[in-house]
Amino acid sequence: MKWIQSPENPLIKEIKKIIKKPEEKIFIEGINLIEAALTSDYVQIEEVLVTEDFIEKQREFFKTFKSKILVTGISERIAKTISETVTPQGIFAVAKFKYKNLNEIKNPKLAVIADRIQDPGNLGTIIRASEALGAEALLTTPGTCNPLSGKVLRASAGSIFFIPVIKASVKDIKDFILKNKLKLVITDLKAKLHCFNVDFTGSLAVAFGNESHGVSEELKTIKHISCRIPHKGKTESLNVAIAATVLLYEILRQRSLKPP
Amino acid sequence: MKWIQSPENPLIKEIKKIIKKPEEKIFIEGINLIEAALTSDYVQIEEVLVTEDFIEKQREFFKTFKSKILVTGISERIAKTISETVTPQGIFAVAKFKYKNLNEIKNPKLAVIADRIQDPGNLGTIIRASEALGAEALLTTPGTCNPLSGKVLRASAGSIFFIPVIKASVKDIKDFILKNKLKLVITDLKAKLHCFNVDFTGSLAVAFGNESHGVSEELKTIKHISCRIPHKGKTESLNVAIAATVLLYEILRQRSLKPP
Repeated sequence: MKWIQSPENPLIKEIKKIIKKPEEKIFIEGINLIEAALTSDYVQIEEVLVTEDFIEKQREFFKTFKSKILVTGISERIAKTISETVTPQGIFAVAKFKYKNLNEIKNPKLAVIADRIQDPGNLGTIIRASEALGAEALLTTPGTCNPLSGKVLRASAGSIFFIPVIKASVKDIKDFILKNKLKLVITDLKAKLHCFNVDFTGSLAVAFGNESHGVSEELKTIKHISCRIPHKGKTESLNVAIAATVLLYEILRQRSLKPP
Repeated sequence: MKWIQSPENPLIKEIKKIIKKPEEKIFIEGINLIEAALTSDYVQIEEVLVTEDFIEKQREFFKTFKSKILVTGISERIAKTISETVTPQGIFAVAKFKYKNLNEIKNPKLAVIADRIQDPGNLGTIIRASEALGAEALLTTPGTCNPLSGKVLRASAGSIFFIPVIKASVKDIKDFILKNKLKLVITDLKAKLHCFNVDFTGSLAVAFGNESHGVSEELKTIKHISCRIPHKGKTESLNVAIAATVLLYEILRQRSLKPP
């Protein structure tokens, strides 16, 4: 096993670049995310970095991948410089990632659109709920935060490795909706219709918009139904990730009542 | 208006203590949270601290409370030492907080129990969903993270100021449930019953448990119904805050279908 001691090592330098701008390559930290990535068809782990302490403490887990993947040892000091968490577990990976193409998604029953979502925590939670519900695709419009950042990966709890993530323009989305005969549902705070009164049993695309401005006017030019999530409290509105979760589960509930 | 320049000032020292251990006094940062606190019956703002920059930029907001509350000016440097956010807005407040007593909650239709929830973000989200749904009380068992920390306040988006928060032992909770004839519902990953098949129209207490261990065995000694949130994805389980949101909205949905 090779050991890296210098922060000037080319691999460490490359990792720092990937952390700044993950695209074709992504950086994954921690056992849970790396385990998820190992069983995913959507990402391919190229290299794993571990600290001596990790090998010592996680002997069993270390054995499971040691034979399959190139493993490099790093010092605790280097681990700290590349970690994005307060208490690094001491295991990191570099993986290849490829966005899917909208054309690869055939006859979806449910596609989720993240429209200019800014907060990585929100986007990760939306991805997690989308995957938990069995959505077949997660579309992000221009202006949405990078779905491959460490924060999104962590907030998605690895579910991002099990749902096709697609970058799509509004025009792409329009074509996709028409081609697949989807009903577009937009969540809007000011809509009169409650989401509990919308029929979600047919094939759907559901859009969740920017934290401050909601779904864009451009996206609204596509024929759609607007609905809102009812709430009773004094606080102004639901966090978009919570609203998305509620709506996605309402879809699941309605569909689980009907025979498939 | 008094101005503080020294980080050794007694008020600044007191604030740092409050940040470490908020109890009878809490520390609130940012316009949104302070606005929420100003309209709340549950907290009482004692003192507001602002930077010169804040006064300059937020003249209108500054005017709304300037006459009512003791306002102290602080330097940008001090603001940075007491801020818990990356880009401080330059407004902070110290407020009195008093936990409610379980006896003050009369004939609740819905009480939410946070049982040893560890993550402040999760607790804040549970509080936000509880308040949005109109729950009459939020009970926290021993072992739950401090609901008054800045992280919980922010994750709750101020909704914590509009719902009674109560520290309660399992014995307290048992007595409360019996006295108010509540049905106790526990979310459990291993339960057979789907939450969509449970009748939530009667008066309820619903419990959400620790991120790793679920609801405690002790709480389960109280007569209850266990149910789980269905999901279809590959990832193992839902985040507890998401599960709570889904369940609370299912309660709202069922109740909004029936005449009150």
